[in-house]
Amino acid sequence: MINKLIDKIQKTKAPIVVGLDPMLSYVPEQVKERAFAEYGETLAGAAEAIWQFNKEIVDKTFDLIPAVKPQIAMYEQFGIEGMQAYKKTVDYCKSKDLLVIGDVKRGDIGSTSAAYAAGHLGKVQVGSRTYAGFDEDFATVNPYLGSDGVKPFIDVCKEEKKGLFILVKTSNPSSGEFQDQLVDGKPLYELVGEKVAQWGEEHCSETYSYIGAVVGATYPEQGKLLRKVMPKSFILVPGYGAQGGKGRDLVHFFNDDGLGAIVNSSRGIIAAYKQEAYQKYGQENFGEASRKAVEDMIADIRGALETR
Amino acid sequence: MINKLIDKIQKTKAPIVVGLDPMLSYVPEQVKERAFAEYGETLAGAAEAIWQFNKEIVDKTFDLIPAVKPQIAMYEQFGIEGMQAYKKTVDYCKSKDLLVIGDVKRGDIGSTSAAYAAGHLGKVQVGSRTYAGFDEDFATVNPYLGSDGVKPFIDVCKEEKKGLFILVKTSNPSSGEFQDQLVDGKPLYELVGEKVAQWGEEHCSETYSYIGAVVGATYPEQGKLLRKVMPKSFILVPGYGAQGGKGRDLVHFFNDDGLGAIVNSSRGIIAAYKQEAYQKYGQENFGEASRKAVEDMIADIRGALETR
Repeated sequence: MINKLIDKIQKTKAPIVVGLDPMLSYVPEQVKERAFAEYGETLAGAAEAIWQFNKEIVDKTFDLIPAVKPQIAMYEQFGIEGMQAYKKTVDYCKSKDLLVIGDVKRGDIGSTSAAYAAGHLGKVQVGSRTYAGFDEDFATVNPYLGSDGVKPFIDVCKEEKKGLFILVKTSNPSSGEFQDQLVDGKPLYELVGEKVAQWGEEHCSETYSYIGAVVGATYPEQGKLLRKVMPKSFILVPGYGAQGGKGRDLVHFFNDDGLGAIVNSSRGIIAAYKQEAYQKYGQENFGEASRKAVEDMIADIRGALETR
Repeated sequence: MINKLIDKIQKTKAPIVVGLDPMLSYVPEQVKERAFAEYGETLAGAAEAIWQFNKEIVDKTFDLIPAVKPQIAMYEQFGIEGMQAYKKTVDYCKSKDLLVIGDVKRGDIGSTSAAYAAGHLGKVQVGSRTYAGFDEDFATVNPYLGSDGVKPFIDVCKEEKKGLFILVKTSNPSSGEFQDQLVDGKPLYELVGEKVAQWGEEHCSETYSYIGAVVGATYPEQGKLLRKVMPKSFILVPGYGAQGGKGRDLVHFFNDDGLGAIVNSSRGIIAAYKQEAYQKYGQENFGEASRKAVEDMIADIRGALETR
């Protein structure tokens, strides 16, 4: 799957990923009205609204981008109906040949991580048959429980040719509270990064490993360091745009081959129509606004990479 | 909710929680056969099997125990159908007046944690209405992202009178890989414990805080220390029985008032009928075997507390 990701990045010339994190407040009124007219102001109505919102954005952007990253929390908050919208979104994106990074941040003790891994990346046995529950291509994983919480995910990735992005240094303001604590003079995130690099070495396709990392765009200096610590790991970089980072701040997340990172933007793309820069599209054409925002983001990052 | 938990522990004299983590391999053949006869060897069939399995165990044990802890991964692996079985289990346990600790180990950046918190402990707004997605009483939370990943959960708990158990020192063998790293001479778990204590102080009901911690039964020495670091926090202690710990090893997780900890057993209770000690019940009477295992666990822990 990491090779497919690299292929698609090279074809689209777009090392970016669109974060499908649909808050109801991002969904234009006409989309909500149609959904509520059909299902009422119910969880099913909310799920329909975010699904229709996603579908329009995917339809308007899928040819420009290699991958999407649905944030499962935004669906899970709507209960079962929300989870159904998540699955519909994953399936639809895959039908459009987009790679799907399930931003699930799961992680637990071994046997429990194995269940999460089966549900999101692998298959589960039911009697004599096997089924894929959610079937994303990549998943994000929380490393707080250590190797035996991560290994079941790696095993499933190996079997199913899928991939991981492990939280190393997250984009939020308080990420340093534990992640920056010094252990023998080194911040904890560097220790986690070294572990990711080690898992990566052991699970490498031709050039890059299918064990990647998450490092926030909001911490470019740490990104620079972690790029060196994990040379064969792809870095998923959240926090572009709305959270702060811009293309020129992010060049150090990439290797000299122009690969090795994929930058996520969520709100900046999916709610682009609400920004002054894209207001001319109007909320009726929110998908077109998202497309233009994707084009601008690609130009920003590609420009920064070309002039570094 | 923490006061309700304390009341129920005092009434049942059972500081224990039954982990409803139904692997299909734990479910007796006759239960699977009935489910597969109705739904086939499908995800729906698997979901029906684990739901019927849970229901029988709950029916046979609910009068003895204060709470259950369904591990969501065991349901999530079966996709949407599994999540439906999770919700059915949560709702059924609540109808039996059991407190439900959703073992979800979620945690993300602020806005995303807010969505998880709304979905599992709070309510979500849909137009002019509000709905509860999964509606557990407590949830487990992963602290790797720091305060702003935890705070949205605390806010929802305050509003909805619910509670948290934050991962401090987990029960798995490799938990030390990051959690035991020394920061200024102190292990990271102690630092996380201090943070839990601080959040706990700020959110205290009469005696105990609704911000609790997870500390594995497999690490009794660390439990002893963390008991002192977090005097007002309830400690959820996984790892009893199957993972290793026994009553006498766990007394130090409790305060002198005999409160402050709640010990979880999953496999040891729900798959009791597979153990030699309970084989005489036979797989037809697996619920009775679970009841006896609960009684034995209560006696073990109560005995250890009375003789310490």
